[in-house]
Amino acid sequence: MSRWSPEARNRLQAAALELFAERGYTETTVAAVAERAGLTERTFFRYFTDKKEVLFAEDPLGALVVAAITASAGPSALDLAVDGFRAAAAYLQADAPQVRRRAAVIAVTPELQEREMLKMSRWTAMVTETLQADQVEPRAARIAAEVSTALFRIAYDMWIDGSEVMGLVTLLDELLGVLQSVSETVPRR
Amino acid sequence: MSRWSPEARNRLQAAALELFAERGYTETTVAAVAERAGLTERTFFRYFTDKKEVLFAEDPLGALVVAAITASAGPSALDLAVDGFRAAAAYLQADAPQVRRRAAVIAVTPELQEREMLKMSRWTAMVTETLQADQVEPRAARIAAEVSTALFRIAYDMWIDGSEVMGLVTLLDELLGVLQSVSETVPRR
Repeated sequence: MSRWSPEARNRLQAAALELFAERGYTETTVAAVAERAGLTERTFFRYFTDKKEVLFAEDPLGALVVAAITASAGPSALDLAVDGFRAAAAYLQADAPQVRRRAAVIAVTPELQEREMLKMSRWTAMVTETLQADQVEPRAARIAAEVSTALFRIAYDMWIDGSEVMGLVTLLDELLGVLQSVSETVPRR
Repeated sequence: MSRWSPEARNRLQAAALELFAERGYTETTVAAVAERAGLTERTFFRYFTDKKEVLFAEDPLGALVVAAITASAGPSALDLAVDGFRAAAAYLQADAPQVRRRAAVIAVTPELQEREMLKMSRWTAMVTETLQADQVEPRAARIAAEVSTALFRIAYDMWIDGSEVMGLVTLLDELLGVLQSVSETVPRR
């Protein structure tokens, strides 16, 4: 194996996710991850600065969302923003087993949940900026960004917990439909 | 002063906010807060379990939001949820100087920001439950709750940073109007 190989990186990542699921994130050491992958601790640190980076490093989703918005022909600010998250949804859906394993680790580890929330709030900021660069008025940009992030997060939660059998993209589109309905009159009691 | 007086509580709270602003939250000790209020440390602990509780204890806002939703005649799920946050906005607006002092402390203290985010996510859960109890379909309830929380948070941020001179209630209503516009076609480039 060469000194810098995507294969070694993937093996470390897979080994880490296995061990996090078996023993818990906090209880898993970098040494154990390296051993499970048949590599040295030193090799681990060539790819990741620390244990947390296995779950959060080189996340292409933010860049993917921004690129999709820029390429979108969506007629409204919200359509643009949702097109961004549709691209992220398609990406995650293609790698469902790995994504679910990662989500399961985060769900039971409070310190990782904070990091995940922070990641989401960074996406909202990136989407806001991208929409503003696309001539959307600042307040409308922020609202479209917050609302689309919320729709994505709800769809993601439902998809991860398995309460919906739909794909993540379909689920996101469904929720966009529900969003339209929440402003309409509903029967009460 | 009696052993349990709202006056002592308010004095401790005011003293804490003053000291947090002067020295920073982390650098302020409970002893210093008690001294500034002219009370003992022991008295402090009769009213608050720890320093953080001065900023987060006995927050009536969650209950206020729920009560306002239950009392609302709003025709749609989103109108109901926004009526809840309108009540919270009116409450905060009436106590603007104290609210701004509290926000200024939180803005510069990362450990308090996490707690504040957690508080907001609890509100979203409470609003979701209240709407569901009001016969709103579960997914619509969660979306209306997330969207109204987002509108409130954006309005609050703008109101706190002073970039808008409007009152918090007016600002929230403005943003509700902007929300309608984000689904409509916008000119691009």
